Amino acid sequence: MSQEIEWLSGRGISAPRGFQIGAARAGIKTQGKDVALLVADEGATCAAVFTTSQVKAAPVLISAEHLSRSNPRAIVVNAGNANCCTGEAGMRNARKMCEFAASKLGLQAQEILVCSTGIIGHALPLEKIESALGSITLDASDEDAARAFMTTDTVPKFAAAQTQIGGETVTVGGQAKGVGMIGPNMAPLSVHATMLAFLTTDAKVETARLQRLLEIAVERSFNSVTVDGDMSTNDTAILLASGTSKVEISDQNESQFLELLQAVCIELARKIARDGEGATRLIQIEVAGAATERDARQIALSIANSPLVKTAIFGRDPNWGRIAMAAGKAGVPFDASKLSFSLGEVALFHNGEPLSFDLARAEFQLANEDVFIRLQLGEGTADWTAWTCDFSYEYVKINAEYHT
Amino acid sequence: MSQEIEWLSGRGISAPRGFQIGAARAGIKTQGKDVALLVADEGATCAAVFTTSQVKAAPVLISAEHLSRSNPRAIVVNAGNANCCTGEAGMRNARKMCEFAASKLGLQAQEILVCSTGIIGHALPLEKIESALGSITLDASDEDAARAFMTTDTVPKFAAAQTQIGGETVTVGGQAKGVGMIGPNMAPLSVHATMLAFLTTDAKVETARLQRLLEIAVERSFNSVTVDGDMSTNDTAILLASGTSKVEISDQNESQFLELLQAVCIELARKIARDGEGATRLIQIEVAGAATERDARQIALSIANSPLVKTAIFGRDPNWGRIAMAAGKAGVPFDASKLSFSLGEVALFHNGEPLSFDLARAEFQLANEDVFIRLQLGEGTADWTAWTCDFSYEYVKINAEYHT
Repeated sequence: MSQEIEWLSGRGISAPRGFQIGAARAGIKTQGKDVALLVADEGATCAAVFTTSQVKAAPVLISAEHLSRSNPRAIVVNAGNANCCTGEAGMRNARKMCEFAASKLGLQAQEILVCSTGIIGHALPLEKIESALGSITLDASDEDAARAFMTTDTVPKFAAAQTQIGGETVTVGGQAKGVGMIGPNMAPLSVHATMLAFLTTDAKVETARLQRLLEIAVERSFNSVTVDGDMSTNDTAILLASGTSKVEISDQNESQFLELLQAVCIELARKIARDGEGATRLIQIEVAGAATERDARQIALSIANSPLVKTAIFGRDPNWGRIAMAAGKAGVPFDASKLSFSLGEVALFHNGEPLSFDLARAEFQLANEDVFIRLQLGEGTADWTAWTCDFSYEYVKINAEYHT
Repeated sequence: MSQEIEWLSGRGISAPRGFQIGAARAGIKTQGKDVALLVADEGATCAAVFTTSQVKAAPVLISAEHLSRSNPRAIVVNAGNANCCTGEAGMRNARKMCEFAASKLGLQAQEILVCSTGIIGHALPLEKIESALGSITLDASDEDAARAFMTTDTVPKFAAAQTQIGGETVTVGGQAKGVGMIGPNMAPLSVHATMLAFLTTDAKVETARLQRLLEIAVERSFNSVTVDGDMSTNDTAILLASGTSKVEISDQNESQFLELLQAVCIELARKIARDGEGATRLIQIEVAGAATERDARQIALSIANSPLVKTAIFGRDPNWGRIAMAAGKAGVPFDASKLSFSLGEVALFHNGEPLSFDLARAEFQLANEDVFIRLQLGEGTADWTAWTCDFSYEYVKINAEYHT
């Protein structure tokens, strides 16, 4: 796969035609907008994946229910409160949020998916949300919409890109939030790490196909990014397809659409890792030569989640023994005598033997904002890429001081 | 099980009769003794478990080989260098270390187990070790022996206890090291997280039984302690039984012996967590009411390894949503509506509903050096306890500044 993908600078979920977005301040966060609405034109299809945590927030349970019973075409989201571990009252509140949004948009409550992110275990301030949704206008910019679902994020994360399919332009837009409690492992009817991602496209895609393609794209993007390995109770990724372009996705052209969708998802996943709590480096871990994709993924994420690897990179220390350690502990069988790896341009270990290398050159690989760790297992042909960030004093500060 | 166990204050691996220990300075660490020898009287039996990492250090591979071919009765250990990822040369060096020790003790090389801990990927300074072993004398104190295998540990960790079995006294002694790269998961012929533990007893225990009992004791102790979840390439726990007491362990009395052995192992595991890199708190996580012990263990370790839980405790913040998150992400199915948990004396969550509680009282539970998190799943009767420490600025400092 490799086609011409054109990035639409400064654009996000409204880049594809057929969507309207609104953002407002409900006053849940201490400042800024904290409620948003996204609605697709009539006839849109919807796909979603949710956290696989056993402790699912109320909005996750309600959204999964709506997705299974209806064909939703709008999303309501709030930041500042996760509506999780809130018992029966939380379930009622999540339903109410859908009702408020439905009433605003002239839809049924079951046509709304609901997402919340923020502190766990506190009652949702429902009146504030009701009031904000009452007066919301559907004229927000992509950046406004992305800002409205930020928690500890320092920058809004959105992207859009387009490509030609059968001579027509297809566009995918997206926005994501999440910088901590990031270690998503989303699957149908489940969700994790408060990672929220909303994706839009003007392609026409039948629901079952849309769901399948979203699941594939999420595995190689959001489910491969980690900040702290702490899968959230609220993770959700939703893809709405408005069908307003002339392009209908079929068996013949779905690989082209998937490539575009995946590119946008990966771009957003990288933005999450780059903005990870306290991050000073984006770390990309590429594992090749694995027996299976599952093996490659598990090793890549084991390295991505290793506090020792992440603190070494924060310390600009090419302490490669920790890479070997983290690969070894992944629970994946491989022959260490065939293991090779490198840090950026510098080969460190080849077929089980340490290489002599120039320390200054290795340290230089850690001077860039993007750090690359590449492993070759020599066991097969499967590969996987994961993203994370380094582990700094600031991570501890943010999370020790984020008070209940 | 509950019998009278008497702790022997200030004693360690030499508390049981039938052992001699030596400690010396080879000059691998910047200061202090860094090589030790432990030898049991003739007729002793030996059991060991090793890291399950796929990247096993040379000493682990050699020790596993010796254990499978012979009945070892001595251990040689060095700190400051892990002899891991050192290729064929590393394997030769580990064998050499056994030969030096064997020659000193008048044993065969196969009767020696070898352990190394320290930096990964650097050649072992073999001459220094040879010279130190040449002049070592077998008159070290328990504390000296424990200090000689420390790396970033701030205190030596050793303990000994005894009990009456059939009217006779049986003693178990032990020492452990490890404060980082701690997330052991040791099994026969495998090892992890540079956690090293040497255990001694004067009970007479046939080899197969000794191995089985060690494996059980390790599961509930060293394999249930974590600092950073980073399983090491070098983890090893070794138990030597001298048989010098009059007590032979049989089917009838093995539960009494196991209780004593486990008590010493748990005491050492708690010392590891308390001295975890940068630790200001020991955190004990007790999971009850699980369907299986495996489920309970997985949830306990998921909480113990959660950076968000650990930073919250460092910040003295009773942010209990993170406990729910970490339980939920463990990959163990349970019904969140039956979940209850408490922080020390304060109940926070009951049957899926948040409880109102006094924040000051909850914060007070974090004021003590030992913090207790207790969960009830309501799924069955299995339980498990895990230990960890909080996650502080100091952890980042230690690991970002521990330079290659």
